[in-house]
Amino acid sequence: MKIIILGSGDVARTLGTAFRKLGHDVAISSRDANKDEAQQWAKQAGGQVLSFSQIPADADFYLNCTAGTASLAALEMVSANTLKGKILIDVANPLDFSNGFPPSLSVCNTNSLGEQIQAALPDTRVVKALNTVSNPVMVNPATVPGLHHLPIAGNDAEAKAQVSELLQAFGWSREQILDLGGIEQARGTEGYLMLWVRMFGKFQTPLFNLQWQVAKEN
Amino acid sequence: MKIIILGSGDVARTLGTAFRKLGHDVAISSRDANKDEAQQWAKQAGGQVLSFSQIPADADFYLNCTAGTASLAALEMVSANTLKGKILIDVANPLDFSNGFPPSLSVCNTNSLGEQIQAALPDTRVVKALNTVSNPVMVNPATVPGLHHLPIAGNDAEAKAQVSELLQAFGWSREQILDLGGIEQARGTEGYLMLWVRMFGKFQTPLFNLQWQVAKEN
Repeated sequence: MKIIILGSGDVARTLGTAFRKLGHDVAISSRDANKDEAQQWAKQAGGQVLSFSQIPADADFYLNCTAGTASLAALEMVSANTLKGKILIDVANPLDFSNGFPPSLSVCNTNSLGEQIQAALPDTRVVKALNTVSNPVMVNPATVPGLHHLPIAGNDAEAKAQVSELLQAFGWSREQILDLGGIEQARGTEGYLMLWVRMFGKFQTPLFNLQWQVAKEN
Repeated sequence: MKIIILGSGDVARTLGTAFRKLGHDVAISSRDANKDEAQQWAKQAGGQVLSFSQIPADADFYLNCTAGTASLAALEMVSANTLKGKILIDVANPLDFSNGFPPSLSVCNTNSLGEQIQAALPDTRVVKALNTVSNPVMVNPATVPGLHHLPIAGNDAEAKAQVSELLQAFGWSREQILDLGGIEQARGTEGYLMLWVRMFGKFQTPLFNLQWQVAKEN
C-alpha cells in the first residue's frame, strides 16, 4: 500500500519506519523536503520525503502527524482535491507549549482539531486515531502490558474499518480498538491529553496507556 | 469522625450513606435544608441535613458534592472561617449540560474548578478526588474489575494522606490511589471528563474506570 505521512517529526518518522517494515510504500512530508532529519530518515528507512505541495492523490492512506497547532496550515499547502474521498488519519493533538510543560490545548472542550480538519476538508474521510499514545506505543502496543485501549473516531464507518485493519498490523487487536462514534468524539480523545501529559509527568515514561475496566452485567 | 457534605444530590447522598455505614457522623447540606429528598435521606441513613449557612466548623472532613457549575456560589454561603485549615475534598466536575449530552466543561484547560475553589479558600486544604468515577464506584471500587486507578491532587501532602486513608475505608488500595501533585493537576482529572462522558455513552453504564498500564523498566 501507499502511505503518505504529513509531517517529518518523531511521530511521522516512527510511523513511517513501522509502515516500511510492513512493506508499504511510504513518504513523509514537510514544508521543506530537504530537511536533514527527513532526508536521513528516507535513506535509513527506504522511504521518500515530499514537500506538502508535492503530495500526490494516489495514496491509500494519509496520516496527519504535523504539530497540532500547525496542522490546518500544513493541510492548506496540500493541493486542492488531493485528499478528496481519501482517508486521513489524524494523529495530532493541538498541544500548546507556549507556557512550558505541561502544555495546554489550543482548541478543546466545545471543538477539536479532528473536527476542524474534517470541516476544512469536508470530502475527506477523517479518522482520529493514535493520538492517545506515544509513538513507540502506536507502532508496538505490546510495549505496554495488559489489554489497553485505543479510541478512534470518525464519521465514515468504512474508513474506520480500514484504519482498524491498518492498526491491527502493528499489533492492536480488534478488542483494543474502541470506536467512539463520529469525529466530534475527538473532543474526548484530545481532551484526554490534559490527563495524559500529567500521567507522563507522574510515570516519567511515555510508555503507558489506559485500559478501561467495565463492570460485568449482572 | 464528623463528615459534612456540601450538596444533597445523588453523589452527596451516596457518599453520605457510605460514610454512615462506616459509622461516621454525617450531614449533607443544601441551600434549603427542608428539601424532601434530603430529609428522606436523613431518615433512612440516620444522618443530618443542614443549610449551607448552618455548616459548623468542627467536622473532620468536608466534601464538595454540589454541581460543579454551582460550587463556588454554594461555598460562598458557608460562613467565613468555617473551612479555615480544614480539608475539603472536591468531588465536583464543572459539567455544563446547557447543550445536552455529552456536556462540555464550564472551566478547563488553563484552569480548573479545584484551583478556583483553592483560590477562593486559600486557608482551606483542598484535595481533588473521586471526580473521575461515578458514585457507585466511588464508595465501592470493587464494582469494577481490575486494579483501576483514582487520581488525586492537592497542595497539602498531609491532607492528601488523610484523604487517602478515608478512601481506603471504601476499598481503594494505596496502589490504586495516584497522587498527581498540586491542585493544578485537577486540570488533568477534570479535563479527563471530556473522555469519561463519551466512554459512558459507549459502555452504556457508569460502572467503569481506567487502569493505567505502564511498561516495566528494562
